[in-house]
Amino acid sequence: MPLNKDQTTPLVPSLIKEGIRGDENYDIMKAAIITIGNEILSGMTLDTNAAYLSQELGTIGIPVVLKISVGDRAIDIQMAFKQALSDSDIVLCTGGLGPTSDDITKKVAARFFKSKLKLDKGTLEHIRSRFAKRGIEMPACNRWQAMVPDRAAVLFNPEGTAPGLLFKKGKKILILMPGVPREMRAIFAGSLKERLAGLSCGMKINMLTLRTTGIPESVIAEKLAPFEKCLAKGTLAYLPTRLGVDLRLTMSGKDASQISAKLQELSAKIKQLLGNVIYGQDDETMEQAVGRLLKEKKLTLTTAESCTGGLIADRITDVPGSSVNFLGSVIAYSNVLKEKMLGVKSQTLRLHGAVSKETAIEMANGVRGRLGSDLGLTITGIAGPAGGTDKKPVGLVFMAVAGPKGTMVEERRFLGQRRHIKESATQAALNMLRLYLLK
Amino acid sequence: MPLNKDQTTPLVPSLIKEGIRGDENYDIMKAAIITIGNEILSGMTLDTNAAYLSQELGTIGIPVVLKISVGDRAIDIQMAFKQALSDSDIVLCTGGLGPTSDDITKKVAARFFKSKLKLDKGTLEHIRSRFAKRGIEMPACNRWQAMVPDRAAVLFNPEGTAPGLLFKKGKKILILMPGVPREMRAIFAGSLKERLAGLSCGMKINMLTLRTTGIPESVIAEKLAPFEKCLAKGTLAYLPTRLGVDLRLTMSGKDASQISAKLQELSAKIKQLLGNVIYGQDDETMEQAVGRLLKEKKLTLTTAESCTGGLIADRITDVPGSSVNFLGSVIAYSNVLKEKMLGVKSQTLRLHGAVSKETAIEMANGVRGRLGSDLGLTITGIAGPAGGTDKKPVGLVFMAVAGPKGTMVEERRFLGQRRHIKESATQAALNMLRLYLLK
Repeated sequence: MPLNKDQTTPLVPSLIKEGIRGDENYDIMKAAIITIGNEILSGMTLDTNAAYLSQELGTIGIPVVLKISVGDRAIDIQMAFKQALSDSDIVLCTGGLGPTSDDITKKVAARFFKSKLKLDKGTLEHIRSRFAKRGIEMPACNRWQAMVPDRAAVLFNPEGTAPGLLFKKGKKILILMPGVPREMRAIFAGSLKERLAGLSCGMKINMLTLRTTGIPESVIAEKLAPFEKCLAKGTLAYLPTRLGVDLRLTMSGKDASQISAKLQELSAKIKQLLGNVIYGQDDETMEQAVGRLLKEKKLTLTTAESCTGGLIADRITDVPGSSVNFLGSVIAYSNVLKEKMLGVKSQTLRLHGAVSKETAIEMANGVRGRLGSDLGLTITGIAGPAGGTDKKPVGLVFMAVAGPKGTMVEERRFLGQRRHIKESATQAALNMLRLYLLK
Repeated sequence: MPLNKDQTTPLVPSLIKEGIRGDENYDIMKAAIITIGNEILSGMTLDTNAAYLSQELGTIGIPVVLKISVGDRAIDIQMAFKQALSDSDIVLCTGGLGPTSDDITKKVAARFFKSKLKLDKGTLEHIRSRFAKRGIEMPACNRWQAMVPDRAAVLFNPEGTAPGLLFKKGKKILILMPGVPREMRAIFAGSLKERLAGLSCGMKINMLTLRTTGIPESVIAEKLAPFEKCLAKGTLAYLPTRLGVDLRLTMSGKDASQISAKLQELSAKIKQLLGNVIYGQDDETMEQAVGRLLKEKKLTLTTAESCTGGLIADRITDVPGSSVNFLGSVIAYSNVLKEKMLGVKSQTLRLHGAVSKETAIEMANGVRGRLGSDLGLTITGIAGPAGGTDKKPVGLVFMAVAGPKGTMVEERRFLGQRRHIKESATQAALNMLRLYLLK
């Protein structure tokens, strides 16, 4: 499978490219997703169905190449069907199968596939029994949901009244499912996923994410340049977030254990090139990584926060079982409390200010000593929007760690809104502690 | 504009239907949204940009009629441009403007509009200064982001390095924005929204949201039953979240001041029916509402948290200017710190446990006394997943407020995951303080 020069493109699309280029080592099936409904168009409802289906299809080796959302309007639904079927082998649609008059997906699909609607007795029975269980007589409008196009196969909906429908046109498949996520998922997981996996060529896709922080995307790219040359059959995607840059390796093939071994090999190479800027793998958060290290080293931690106002402690305590190593925190928002609760000298505050290297160090030693922990982590800074000066602008923070290996202090500058500064500063402080623990 | 029976349907889609039905009282401009990027196609990233833009366009009377997501592939991006421009007047695209080689949106758009790329000095200067502020030299690849198609107008990006770009073709407009939500929103809110509102036909849609907490959706519905009858030309949507139920009133018309007056009138009626379960309006958060009351009453606050681990303080300090009233907090995760830092009696902990009414009261008085504030707010509970017993299950919390009007204590029980319990408990504690301040 030759890779194009664009090494940073994730594999799914590069699979797509291959399929399209006719570079047919694998004869890859492609999918499109259509979500139908005014709620999604208006932005009132987030389109979680499309994300779910993409991920599920990814695991059975069917990449999604196109997503379309349209309202409950026949001409748009028809356009979407046509566009999606022109490039994809499998089209999955959600929405517009309800009992009310604005639910027209089924009608449009029936016309599109030159199919007639007829009553499906099994479906009608299922709908009736659902209402009976709730002690309600079936409203007349629900009978409409038992009308099924004669050229479509019915997909049982264990969670609701609207069945899924599967149309075939040559080798192409179009599937209608209800928009209610619970119902859609029940139909998809019920039998559809397996059926589509059977159509797929047996290609497996596997991913592994390495999470970095404190290093710009472009610097990572430079460091990984030698690696990208030997990437061979995988792809590497850069996913920047406010908390760092995630690196996602994707690998595909017919043998799952082979892919998995190869991914491990590639991730080992990246780890070698990047070293300890990588703090976690896959879903592991910074606070989990820090919690893991504290557990390994059997150390207790306290924190003292100023500008981040409790966000460090909040993140640390998001990890179940954190109470074993985390004793507590002092949030000293006012200078008075920095003196009273943490023992910062009034002279230090007067001479250097609350946002200074000196204050950060005294806070770290103060919280560690007063609260009685092995380690003290602190941060002091200016979250804005007010309070900045030329010499000490908004976003300036000082972070310090005090512990058995001495005291470490760092100055950083973050950009953005108040909340963004809090988040970035928190990530940097936790990362500083992580590096201290790795020393 | 006749309303359909379904009163909870948002207005935007009903406008769409009208526009489409050829019910041309209003000559409505229509928009399409294209999101570009493999992360969205693969389902790894939820498409929040499209939802945001739809909602924002809705408020200026521009309905979105089509959404397309494609990967970072030229032929697909081009197809999406073509399809979107065929039916819509305004096309908003996000994604693919980064510095790496897989970001090709700009190149594709330049070709599509027969435009050449040239260096934009202002943009280059802006990018350089962003890196300089962080004390980093600009990596070479970021220079690419300053290359701008000669037929496009540059839209300033205050939050990042990739500018927005606006192309015109006859009366149609296509806009490129970065995929990072913060940057995209900054560009849109910066000047673009106003500019597009100017193009819109003058149909105004206005919304007003009343935020409630601590009351179930069904109870609100019962209380509002008499109101819904007189809703007439507006709609009311119930939007339940983990932090409460938001009530969104929507109203449309040509006369902005008339709509606005009507919305005020309707919201006054709801306020009358629901009373002080409403804590805020529109985007106002609970922490803002509490901060506003503290400012009005010129009172200082300290907090002492156990199970919420700093989240109360974090939320309070998210509000700019909170340092005037909020002095600080003690997060006493361990019992030792509850005694040492807050003066909770060891006997109380022994007899009643850390999660008890008695401990909560002593924490509230302790933090208030020791840190020297007018008010003390505390919470102690079991966030789970471990630590629960039959008598004190996971999700049980006690909250207390101590202040000039005496001490108030409350027991609550929340369901869900650790993080959900932290969030719900925090909201309830802040709401308790709010009601104390309103007494």
